[in-house]
Amino acid sequence: MSNAKVTENLFADQLSEVVQAVERALEEYLDGDVEVQASLQEAILYSLLAGGKRLRPALVIFVCEACGGERQGAICPAAAIEMIHTFSLIHDDLPAMDDDDLRRGKPTSHKVFGEGMAVLAGDALVTRAFGAVARYVEDAHQVRRLVWELAHGAGAMINGQAADIHHENHQGDLEAVTYIHTHKTAMMFRASARMGAVSARADDDRVELMGDYGLKIGLAFQIVDDLLDLTSSPKAMGKGTQKDGDTGKLTYPLVAGEEISHRHADALIREAIALIEPLGQRGLPLRQLAQMVVERQD
Amino acid sequence: MSNAKVTENLFADQLSEVVQAVERALEEYLDGDVEVQASLQEAILYSLLAGGKRLRPALVIFVCEACGGERQGAICPAAAIEMIHTFSLIHDDLPAMDDDDLRRGKPTSHKVFGEGMAVLAGDALVTRAFGAVARYVEDAHQVRRLVWELAHGAGAMINGQAADIHHENHQGDLEAVTYIHTHKTAMMFRASARMGAVSARADDDRVELMGDYGLKIGLAFQIVDDLLDLTSSPKAMGKGTQKDGDTGKLTYPLVAGEEISHRHADALIREAIALIEPLGQRGLPLRQLAQMVVERQD
Repeated sequence: MSNAKVTENLFADQLSEVVQAVERALEEYLDGDVEVQASLQEAILYSLLAGGKRLRPALVIFVCEACGGERQGAICPAAAIEMIHTFSLIHDDLPAMDDDDLRRGKPTSHKVFGEGMAVLAGDALVTRAFGAVARYVEDAHQVRRLVWELAHGAGAMINGQAADIHHENHQGDLEAVTYIHTHKTAMMFRASARMGAVSARADDDRVELMGDYGLKIGLAFQIVDDLLDLTSSPKAMGKGTQKDGDTGKLTYPLVAGEEISHRHADALIREAIALIEPLGQRGLPLRQLAQMVVERQD
Repeated sequence: MSNAKVTENLFADQLSEVVQAVERALEEYLDGDVEVQASLQEAILYSLLAGGKRLRPALVIFVCEACGGERQGAICPAAAIEMIHTFSLIHDDLPAMDDDDLRRGKPTSHKVFGEGMAVLAGDALVTRAFGAVARYVEDAHQVRRLVWELAHGAGAMINGQAADIHHENHQGDLEAVTYIHTHKTAMMFRASARMGAVSARADDDRVELMGDYGLKIGLAFQIVDDLLDLTSSPKAMGKGTQKDGDTGKLTYPLVAGEEISHRHADALIREAIALIEPLGQRGLPLRQLAQMVVERQD
C-alpha cells in the first residue's frame, strides 16, 4: 500500500472513531436528560441518529486535539453542534422552507411525524444542545464561551436561511451567494472549529485562526454541495437533487459557472490548509478533513 | 384612597417600571448583537415588541429582588425568558400547530411574514436568548446555571406542546391536562422564578422554593387562560377565543367543569402565596403578581 493510501485509511479510522464517540454521547444525553413525550423523542432520535457525515462534530474534536486538548473535553460541544445542525436540517426541510421529502435516504421528519411535530423536534434539539453544554461541560468559563459560540453560529445560520428565502428566484450576484453561503453554512463550521479550540483552552489568537480555517472549509463545503446538487443522482446524495434550479435557489455555479466554482472551492481548501501550517504534524487530520470536503461524492 | 387601592397602584407602577426595563434590554440586545437580515429582524421585533403582559420577566425580576438581589442582575435573564416565550408563541401559532391568525390584537407572525420566516424568527429568538445570557451576564457560574434553567424550562415547554398535539380531540383526563399545563406553561414560570433566585445568588433551598411558587402560579395561569378562552371576546383577549373547543384542545374546564377550575386556580394561588410567607414584607410584589394571575381579565 502507498504511503498516501495508508494515511487515508488511518484518517478514515480516526473519523469513524470520532463519529462513534459523538453518537454515543448523543444517545446518552438524549436518554436521561429530561422527560420527553414518546412521540417527540421518537421524532428527535429519527433525525439525529439517521447517519449523516458528522463533519461538524468531527471538526470540533479534530481541532481540539490539534490544539493539544483532550478528546474527552470536546465530545459534549461536538454533540451540541450536531444537535444544532440536525435542528436546522429538520426546519429547512419543512414545506414552508425548502420543502424536501427526502434526507439521508429517508423521508424527512415532517413526512413521517407531521409538520407540527417536526417543528417541535427541531425546537427541542436547539434547547437540548444548550442544555447539554451547561450540564456536561465541567468548567463554567468554558460553558460561557461555548454557549456564546454556539448561539452565534446558530444565529448566523438562521440568518443565512432567511437570506436564502429572500434571494429565491435566482436573484442575486456573487456577493449575495457568498453572503448566503457564509451565513447558512460556513459560520457553523467556523463555530465548530472555534469550539474545538476553546475546548482545548487555546489562546484567543489560536481560536481566531481555527475559526478562519473552519470558515474556509465551510465555504468550500457549500460550493461542493451546490455542484453535487447539479450532477449527482438522488440515490448517491440520499436527498432530492437538481432541486436548487427548480426552486430558484441562488447557487454558486449559477452565478459563477461550474468551472470557476470548482476552482474556487479548491482555492479555499488550499487556503484553509495553509492556515493550519503552524500546527505541524498535529494538524494532519485537519488537512485530511479539508481535503475530504472537496473530494466527497455525496 | 383605601390602603388596598394604594398598594395595588404601587404594584401597577412597579410592574410598569419592570416591563419598561425589560423592553429596553430587549431592544438593546437585538440591536447590536449580531448581523441580521432586515426581513428577519423585522419579524423578530414585530412579535417581541408587540406588547404582552411580560409576566415571566416580571417574575424573574420580582423574585430576584424578593431574594435580596439587585434588579440589574436579573434584567438579562428576564429578557432571555421573554425571548423564549415569544419564540414559543410564534411557533405555536403556526398553521401546523394551533393555527392562530390573531395574537395580542395583531395578525400572527406567519400571517404577516409567511410561514418560513415565522419559523426562522422563532428559531432566531431561541438562539439569541441563550446568546444574551452568555454575553451579558457577568459571572460565568451564573451563566452556567441560567443557561441550564432556561434550557430545561424551554425543553419542558416544547414537550408540553407535543403532549398537547398528542391529546387533541379532547382525549384525556385530569391527569393528562395537568401534565400538559405543567409542561406547556408552568415549567417556564418555574424556570423564571428559579432564574430570579439564581440571579440573586440565593441558596439551593431558596431556588427550589421559588421554583415551586413559580410552578403553582403557572398552573393557575393556564387554568385561568382556559377559562378566559371560554368566556371572553376576541377583542378583550387580543387573540381568537373559544377556539379550544373547536380545535379539540384538552382544557381544564373541559375535564373538571368551570366551577372546579375556578376553585382549583384559587387554591393554587393561595398555596403559592403561602410558600413565600418566609420572605415577609419583601415578598409583597410576589403576592400581588400571584393575585393578578387569577384576577386578570385578559
